[in-house]
Amino acid sequence: MKQSDLSNLVQPFHVMELVKHANALEAQGKPVIHLSIGEPDFPMPEPVQQALIKAVADNKTRYTAALGLPELREAISTYYRTAFQVTVPARQIVITSGASTALMYACLALINPGQEVMLADPGYPCNKTFVQMAGGIPRFVQTREENNFQPSWDELNQNWKPQTAGVLLASPNNPTGTQLSSSDMKEIVQEVAHRDGFTIVDEIYQSLCYDNTAQSVLQITGAPCAQWPLVVINSFSKYFGMTGLRLGWMVVPDALAPAIERLAQNLSICPNTPAQWAALACFQDDTLKICEQRRQIFKARRDFMMQSLPLAGIEIQSTPDSAFYIYAKAPFDSERYCKELLEKALVCAVPGKDFSEHRGTTMMRFSYANSMENLELAVERIRRFNSQT
Amino acid sequence: MKQSDLSNLVQPFHVMELVKHANALEAQGKPVIHLSIGEPDFPMPEPVQQALIKAVADNKTRYTAALGLPELREAISTYYRTAFQVTVPARQIVITSGASTALMYACLALINPGQEVMLADPGYPCNKTFVQMAGGIPRFVQTREENNFQPSWDELNQNWKPQTAGVLLASPNNPTGTQLSSSDMKEIVQEVAHRDGFTIVDEIYQSLCYDNTAQSVLQITGAPCAQWPLVVINSFSKYFGMTGLRLGWMVVPDALAPAIERLAQNLSICPNTPAQWAALACFQDDTLKICEQRRQIFKARRDFMMQSLPLAGIEIQSTPDSAFYIYAKAPFDSERYCKELLEKALVCAVPGKDFSEHRGTTMMRFSYANSMENLELAVERIRRFNSQT
Repeated sequence: MKQSDLSNLVQPFHVMELVKHANALEAQGKPVIHLSIGEPDFPMPEPVQQALIKAVADNKTRYTAALGLPELREAISTYYRTAFQVTVPARQIVITSGASTALMYACLALINPGQEVMLADPGYPCNKTFVQMAGGIPRFVQTREENNFQPSWDELNQNWKPQTAGVLLASPNNPTGTQLSSSDMKEIVQEVAHRDGFTIVDEIYQSLCYDNTAQSVLQITGAPCAQWPLVVINSFSKYFGMTGLRLGWMVVPDALAPAIERLAQNLSICPNTPAQWAALACFQDDTLKICEQRRQIFKARRDFMMQSLPLAGIEIQSTPDSAFYIYAKAPFDSERYCKELLEKALVCAVPGKDFSEHRGTTMMRFSYANSMENLELAVERIRRFNSQT
Repeated sequence: MKQSDLSNLVQPFHVMELVKHANALEAQGKPVIHLSIGEPDFPMPEPVQQALIKAVADNKTRYTAALGLPELREAISTYYRTAFQVTVPARQIVITSGASTALMYACLALINPGQEVMLADPGYPCNKTFVQMAGGIPRFVQTREENNFQPSWDELNQNWKPQTAGVLLASPNNPTGTQLSSSDMKEIVQEVAHRDGFTIVDEIYQSLCYDNTAQSVLQITGAPCAQWPLVVINSFSKYFGMTGLRLGWMVVPDALAPAIERLAQNLSICPNTPAQWAALACFQDDTLKICEQRRQIFKARRDFMMQSLPLAGIEIQSTPDSAFYIYAKAPFDSERYCKELLEKALVCAVPGKDFSEHRGTTMMRFSYANSMENLELAVERIRRFNSQT
């Protein structure tokens, strides 16, 4: 059966092989500790859970508008005002089936086949696929440890070509858990705009940050109006703990909104309806209090991991201040190291291959979306394993 | 802001203007009757609703495998065996965020930029967009009334070109509510395969049929193994009444499954998790009994509309035996007719523009996803309106 070129271009998650291996070991009764997961280990906050149940009980299960529930778009607008002191009109907010669908709409609306889009290396593995599905060519820009693995405008500028359409950034980033500074972000968005390009900023880990208050590129630029060719991607998955609900949102310039609406009508009809009603509860005080408590727990884990992993023989070159990841140097070839760490020490952390063209074999990612008890046990296992190799 | 060529290619739903107009009239207190809606007027069946609530209460809200819950893939496999007497292994079944996402995966996996895909005219407006998003060129094949607006192999064959990649069909079709005969379907799938092309068959209205037992192209071809380059699209939206849950599935040949898995991992992560658990309840006897009762109600409405619309001055040239649509000749220009029918008779039916290049101005669509009481009232209003114009 003939398959498209794209279907051959799209990479599998190489980490899935390792995770399958881990699951097989667990099925044998082996107590594997997962430091591999890109998903909070907490259940959905109870007020959100209750709101979801109520929506279903009330038969709020029919199609909504393609751009999402007006009430939810308004609630997100209010959230930007209260939590980030920035004015984002509801008409610029689009509800999507997870950040994935938001990235898809953005890439389809902005990229022409053959155009290049710059991505930071390391980064979220699927970003290149969204570029490719639009016919674009992902161009990876190598980042430096001393810049927390985030690109500077100079580094992007050196890679800018006539066929470059724009830049896709993530701040905080996965796998590094690091952010762009406000000044770097501002420079990038401005300079890219001067070159008639677009900037897409993935902020799905926005409020999971530990050393500074959460920020948005929208605070830097103001609301994205005509002069800022800027699309912001966000999600209810991480901070609000709604991963399996597949709900996200995007902020788009007014000029782009009609194209996004057409894409949403045609490609999705609408996001999941009960999830949208439930998401309204995310902005209630009781939910925000739970999310803040969880952020504090993540912070304590981050602090523990940053202190104890180096003592266990893992070198960390950057300062992860957000998300729930630590990007670190593997003691030896990261694919082999992660495999042996799993088999011999029953700790499942993931090699760098999915996240980086340049550092795939040297770097690895630890997720601390696991209990402190398990993290302590895992670090001890890592220490013993490293001291034996 | 520069936008992609695709974003300009993608058409809005022209019908949305009419629906907005209808909503505005309703907001003024005018009792509009909607014969415009592509969504059952019943709530989700109660066992499915209860299963959804239970899944949420049980915190089944985390990511699932990209291809969907193994339990649900197995349940669909069993459903094919019990309801359609056809063997479809679970490994060939992929759960998706509505049929929309299934169509997206199919088109991305099978179409190369510049290739043509044949679509029946009239048809579901978004089909062309899925082809376009993959860089393909939709090629509409004109169908005939006397063939119930479904294409024959001869008609497709006349349009087959070196750059044709395959065919996308819907049976039952929207807006016509008509099916391909088994013999026509078999000939098409076989001949397309002989030309090394693919056939995608949308079966989302499969079990909503009234004159014959429900059928699947999979019964004709047997399970889609290597020799049948066939992808089948289905959905929990229509027969199972789960529209806003955005859950569908596709059946793919073994050879295509790895590509679909890579696309699903990268572009979606997974479908909505509670919806997947809830969908398991669709195949219980109590749910199937409710769905069968609803099918009988739809059948009675179809019979009423087919009998009474012609008496009200609406000419129907085909025999809709499925879905909940009647595709009919507008007494005059369909856009103008539908607008006047709404304004003067408070009946909202939709013009043909979204569904057809060739018959956009002559034809229109009535949906009977409304109560018999409302249908009776609507037909009387139509009769009076037609007798006055």
